[in-house]
Amino acid sequence: MLGIRDLSREEIILVLDTADSFIEVSTREIKKVPTLRGKTIVNLFYEASTRTRTSFEIAGKRLSADTINISSTTSSVVKGETLIDTARNLEAMNPDVIIIRHSAAGAPHLLAGLVKQSVINAGDGAHEHPTQALLDMMTIRAKKGRIENLRIAIVGDIAHSRVARSNIYGLKTMGAQVAVAGPATMLPRDMEHMGVEVHSSLEKALAGADVVMMLRIQIERQHQNIFPSLREYARHFCLNRQNIALAKQDVLVMHPGPINRGVEIAPEIADGPFSVILNQVTNGVAVRMALLYLLTGGKG
Amino acid sequence: MLGIRDLSREEIILVLDTADSFIEVSTREIKKVPTLRGKTIVNLFYEASTRTRTSFEIAGKRLSADTINISSTTSSVVKGETLIDTARNLEAMNPDVIIIRHSAAGAPHLLAGLVKQSVINAGDGAHEHPTQALLDMMTIRAKKGRIENLRIAIVGDIAHSRVARSNIYGLKTMGAQVAVAGPATMLPRDMEHMGVEVHSSLEKALAGADVVMMLRIQIERQHQNIFPSLREYARHFCLNRQNIALAKQDVLVMHPGPINRGVEIAPEIADGPFSVILNQVTNGVAVRMALLYLLTGGKG
Amino acid sequence: MLGIRDLSREEIILVLDTADSFIEVSTREIKKVPTLRGKTIVNLFYEASTRTRTSFEIAGKRLSADTINISSTTSSVVKGETLIDTARNLEAMNPDVIIIRHSAAGAPHLLAGLVKQSVINAGDGAHEHPTQALLDMMTIRAKKGRIENLRIAIVGDIAHSRVARSNIYGLKTMGAQVAVAGPATMLPRDMEHMGVEVHSSLEKALAGADVVMMLRIQIERQHQNIFPSLREYARHFCLNRQNIALAKQDVLVMHPGPINRGVEIAPEIADGPFSVILNQVTNGVAVRMALLYLLTGGKG
Repeated sequence: MLGIRDLSREEIILVLDTADSFIEVSTREIKKVPTLRGKTIVNLFYEASTRTRTSFEIAGKRLSADTINISSTTSSVVKGETLIDTARNLEAMNPDVIIIRHSAAGAPHLLAGLVKQSVINAGDGAHEHPTQALLDMMTIRAKKGRIENLRIAIVGDIAHSRVARSNIYGLKTMGAQVAVAGPATMLPRDMEHMGVEVHSSLEKALAGADVVMMLRIQIERQHQNIFPSLREYARHFCLNRQNIALAKQDVLVMHPGPINRGVEIAPEIADGPFSVILNQVTNGVAVRMALLYLLTGGKG
Repeated sequence: MLGIRDLSREEIILVLDTADSFIEVSTREIKKVPTLRGKTIVNLFYEASTRTRTSFEIAGKRLSADTINISSTTSSVVKGETLIDTARNLEAMNPDVIIIRHSAAGAPHLLAGLVKQSVINAGDGAHEHPTQALLDMMTIRAKKGRIENLRIAIVGDIAHSRVARSNIYGLKTMGAQVAVAGPATMLPRDMEHMGVEVHSSLEKALAGADVVMMLRIQIERQHQNIFPSLREYARHFCLNRQNIALAKQDVLVMHPGPINRGVEIAPEIADGPFSVILNQVTNGVAVRMALLYLLTGGKG
Repeated sequence: MLGIRDLSREEIILVLDTADSFIEVSTREIKKVPTLRGKTIVNLFYEASTRTRTSFEIAGKRLSADTINISSTTSSVVKGETLIDTARNLEAMNPDVIIIRHSAAGAPHLLAGLVKQSVINAGDGAHEHPTQALLDMMTIRAKKGRIENLRIAIVGDIAHSRVARSNIYGLKTMGAQVAVAGPATMLPRDMEHMGVEVHSSLEKALAGADVVMMLRIQIERQHQNIFPSLREYARHFCLNRQNIALAKQDVLVMHPGPINRGVEIAPEIADGPFSVILNQVTNGVAVRMALLYLLTGGKG
């Protein structure tokens, strides 16, 4: 499970259907099924993350798997071990699934090529973040009943966003119309070939949208000067009470988190009636349970 | 479970009685009961801690709960996510209990106001550390048979100690007489309104004490210059063989740890016959098991 | 379980036989046995480690124990608590086994002298790393059918290697012939008294070897200038296609990891047909399962 690009429409539907069936487990009195008892799941995180690591860990535990966390700060990474050797060593300990987040695009593919275990990409550089796209599609489908033919706006640093990239692949595969918007420096050049509308204005992307996904501005990368200032960014690309009126009346507002309130999204929108941001988080646990289940031999 | 201040005498007794019943689990061959199977417990620690985090984690596991650790260094905190958003995200993953330690007083209350889950305060700034006070009261009750009418001296940096504050609330509620002592810069002003004796001399607080709680001097905060020097502090406020003779013959010596031997307590006292410091640690696991049990619907 | 030096031939055989019987658990569909259900195992790591910590954690979980990780960066170590107080506090929480890695030689022995729990040394300074030696001996025995009378070369920084020290004790006890090689600054003085051949040339140690263990050069300690340069080291002590021909035709190549490819071992050797480096990792889980089992009362 390395990227959405590799998934067919049928495979995406299988994951979403399976995830739908797992949503109920997390609402039970006893939030645990014995499905993955005796399986070992390794969370190999080379980048900091609360929600993704926690979501995978909770997903594994609710399936009764054993979960092992390895983060780069406490690992042999400080001894300079290569990802290749780490991978081979982990493989030799016979885990069932390795979940990897890495700052380098392609790291999960490298890992998957080396080990016999299933590998899940939990975000690789600016490349893909497939479980985020799956939970996003699950959320859209649950709220709208379908993904096909919806108009979906994705706004922010499109060029550097793995969330945007995975969603574009998945949403296009599922038959949605995708429009992206962002400052010129944040727009990739080749997007139109993918059948995606590209706008340098938030308003144009928002017009008639069924769903709007606001991306997180990576404030910590500001020094790279790809945009003039946060204030400037917010003035043109912050989703707020005014510009949201351009979207459909029942628009869904999504965000992968963590949110920069007042930068890419106004607080009253993030916490308002259109927001399904917390549904995304809840669905994230179910999507990850579904993937762990399917990758360890479960039938959808 | 945010602070001892909010607890009635009956509630404190309920927790202590329940904790007494859990003490035995940790001495069994198989140290585990299925009580919290399928429950998810999150340890959300924004400050370093060995004993408190470990104690909660062991408590959760001995009740068969799934435990998830989140520490500030590896979490989205580095991405600048607010506590509010972290809380809402955790809530969306449906844990059953969130345990929080935070350097800001009131953080657990903020969290509890936001999420539907039970929240346990594992120490918030200089405000409260309720599980410490409960394990202290459990230890006193186990050794003395009661708390009421005992004379209890608390010595050290009273003004900045969440351990002192929680104990004062609890011990007063349970009918003890409390005397505090410390250098003038470490004594809060309003203590006498709470029915607490305030002394600037260790000896006066010790006189006739049934119990003496020595607080940890936070050496790492020394640069704030609230006291002249460690040597100066130790000369006046270190519990040692001489001054302990002022207390009752069967005095209990307590300390929340980690100990600075030779600063607030002489090694021979910390490790001597009056010390119940390690009983406190053992009781800490039982008190935390009791709270987890009661907060997830268990009957005392 | 503090060092190999303390183990008799019979004890080593007991551990290896028990480990052999656990190897199969990690290949099952459900990789878990209920043997240590309700036991608490603490991983107390004062030094970074991926493979050793993960190996112990997986071993514990496959035996159904509860595992608690404590690493120095998040522990009370930052508050300056001594190892002695940490040990006593852990003991008071009633774990069953404490596994410790520490940069100071003798730290596990100090711990074992203080607590009633079983202590496993997971590496102490330049002193011992007994579980590494046991997994090495398990690997040799599995591949060669015996350890006795084999000629085993250990190459690298012998003087500062806990892996070398533990293996020398164990291999000598098991009746092997041991030859060590390394630059003069990396050879201890007293080795010949232990019945070990000492060579300043790789080739002499390799001659006729059944097994060659290449030690990791600690690049991060290079500034200590115990050797001229990595290039210089590699020129004389890197195991490669040429010099390996001096060993027996069915030589086993071992390395404790992490590997510095091109420094102490050529990539084609590390990944070549003689290499059993990943078998070592697999056997590491089994050896650790065996020790946890035996130390908590299991019969071999």
